[in-house]
Amino acid sequence: MQRRRFLTVGAGVAATGALAAPAVAQSAPQIKWRIASSFPKSLDTLYGGAEVFAKAISEMTDGAFTAQISPAGELAPGLQAADAVARGRADACHTSSAYYLDKDPAFALGAATPFGPNARQTNAWLRSGGAEMLDELYARFDLVGLACGNTGAQMGGWFRKDVNAVGDLQGLKIRVSGLGAQVFAKLGAAPQPLGGGDVYPALEKGEIDAAEWIGPYDDQKLGLYQVAKNYYYPGWQAGGPSVQLLIGKAKWEALPARYKAIATGAAAIANETMLARYDAQNPRALRELVAAGVKLKPYPKDVMEAAYKASQEVYAELYQKSPAFKKIHEAQAAFRNEDVLWFRVAELPFDVFMAQMQSRG
Amino acid sequence: MQRRRFLTVGAGVAATGALAAPAVAQSAPQIKWRIASSFPKSLDTLYGGAEVFAKAISEMTDGAFTAQISPAGELAPGLQAADAVARGRADACHTSSAYYLDKDPAFALGAATPFGPNARQTNAWLRSGGAEMLDELYARFDLVGLACGNTGAQMGGWFRKDVNAVGDLQGLKIRVSGLGAQVFAKLGAAPQPLGGGDVYPALEKGEIDAAEWIGPYDDQKLGLYQVAKNYYYPGWQAGGPSVQLLIGKAKWEALPARYKAIATGAAAIANETMLARYDAQNPRALRELVAAGVKLKPYPKDVMEAAYKASQEVYAELYQKSPAFKKIHEAQAAFRNEDVLWFRVAELPFDVFMAQMQSRG
Repeated sequence: MQRRRFLTVGAGVAATGALAAPAVAQSAPQIKWRIASSFPKSLDTLYGGAEVFAKAISEMTDGAFTAQISPAGELAPGLQAADAVARGRADACHTSSAYYLDKDPAFALGAATPFGPNARQTNAWLRSGGAEMLDELYARFDLVGLACGNTGAQMGGWFRKDVNAVGDLQGLKIRVSGLGAQVFAKLGAAPQPLGGGDVYPALEKGEIDAAEWIGPYDDQKLGLYQVAKNYYYPGWQAGGPSVQLLIGKAKWEALPARYKAIATGAAAIANETMLARYDAQNPRALRELVAAGVKLKPYPKDVMEAAYKASQEVYAELYQKSPAFKKIHEAQAAFRNEDVLWFRVAELPFDVFMAQMQSRG
Repeated sequence: MQRRRFLTVGAGVAATGALAAPAVAQSAPQIKWRIASSFPKSLDTLYGGAEVFAKAISEMTDGAFTAQISPAGELAPGLQAADAVARGRADACHTSSAYYLDKDPAFALGAATPFGPNARQTNAWLRSGGAEMLDELYARFDLVGLACGNTGAQMGGWFRKDVNAVGDLQGLKIRVSGLGAQVFAKLGAAPQPLGGGDVYPALEKGEIDAAEWIGPYDDQKLGLYQVAKNYYYPGWQAGGPSVQLLIGKAKWEALPARYKAIATGAAAIANETMLARYDAQNPRALRELVAAGVKLKPYPKDVMEAAYKASQEVYAELYQKSPAFKKIHEAQAAFRNEDVLWFRVAELPFDVFMAQMQSRG
């Protein structure tokens, strides 16, 4: 095998590197954040986003800047993790900003909106002015946001009965959260806001007819396939949900500039790692679910189109209610439309061809 | 607007945060890396990956750990940037590992292979054992690698004449690099390895018939549309090319653990930022190219299928030549196949539906 060693000194090039370098002393304030997670430990990939972040900031500071993570319910209920920050019980929360529509519906735009950008388009938008727009929103609530995970496109959900046409959604009691619930309501369904632990018993007892959750890896753990065999796709309500670290603004501003940069880098690691883990875990879970008798079904086209149309009506209404929603959604949708145009050319034809080859074996 | 302030002390919860925290002194060695880029400054998004990395490590260390970037040609020709590291002229290079097939064809697997994983699948594989496999390869050449950018799916390239069937590739002189060249050769074409600056004149004079480069944003700068009007997609030769920071192993090992973690975080920022920039820039460039008379055309299906088949033959041959290629490619392809299965279910149906809505306006 070819094996090269470094020459001692490159001719005409000054020697560089660690060995000859002087060291200076830097002040390293000891900072320990409490992070309230919106997720239980059992959702290990979602919860793990905060763990990846905490490990990275500690390693980048030799343990001077650390974070202790509390699972949902410890400092605040999962859906109210941001309130733990507002009350000073936590310095930051690892959460979905879509949980805070009561503060302003624009919070949905940091996480996921029906027929919104996919995971990659979300990241591109955040790094092209989107993050600054969201921080203007968050600042009104004394928060600063960092993208800190993504699940990728979610599944449509578990249905006890077939969905053959839009009419089948009439009166359907479905567990669904966020703006997706508003779209389902427009389609005649009766959305039910249930926490993770309540979904299985409600579906088993027939108190609900359907439930949207996350994707194969997480859904498998809830056991929903045992009480609803029809697993519909795609999750148009959440095509690439971003997970946020929402940090108390005063806590963020108290960080030395160096620690802000480190937190930013740690969030980038967590953002990519969570999506990578889902992409690694979902295929196996999907195979196991299908082997267990789950019927994988695409939403009928008329349901997709009706949901798309209803989502536009929901957006038009939200434009009236929230100037922030209007401003940010218009910018995000414009960016997304441009990206979808581009994806139609290089990205999708490549992916579709690979899918065709894969289906042939 | 609802506006909340932090309470001074959360009841029953200890106050945390920066203000009351003690500071310790940490030793911060002054390290300045020289990074040889494989790219000219004019390819600002590719070149910019190293700039984003350098800015991040400096900000994360208050200027103690910095990097000076040299564009292609300054410390070494672009295609030999890794040799600048081997010779001690640079501490690291920002490059495509696909440039080093002469060391071992397995180097292609760090960057892009025909019909390989897309950008997201590449990142998922790297974080699921792929990076460790590549580092075993790199270690044989005293290198350590960090993913530090991605272009997303590239375009197929610029063709002076139509490509209506595989036969049209017979004898075609096409500028194409990496393993894609070997696939084109199997299809009867005559691949030409030309550097960026030589592509336009060769195409203008008719010395070559076609040229694969990157995507709309970068291709537009080369002006290839002025001398070849047919712009084919998708770039099956590079469905999600990763760009690497290849670091001299001794330089990496000399870093304090804290700086290794910081470099890892900085690379994650650069990795995501480059892809985000391409996703933000390519749509506009594509529109402008089409407005300038470029004819956007999909590769015919028989060309795609023949190229896919030829790529499998190339891989079978490389398995005989390089045990490392066999080992890493088998692992990567298995991971990719699982991901393609999963993408067929949630990701692609979502993206395809969005593309349909977009095409309707």
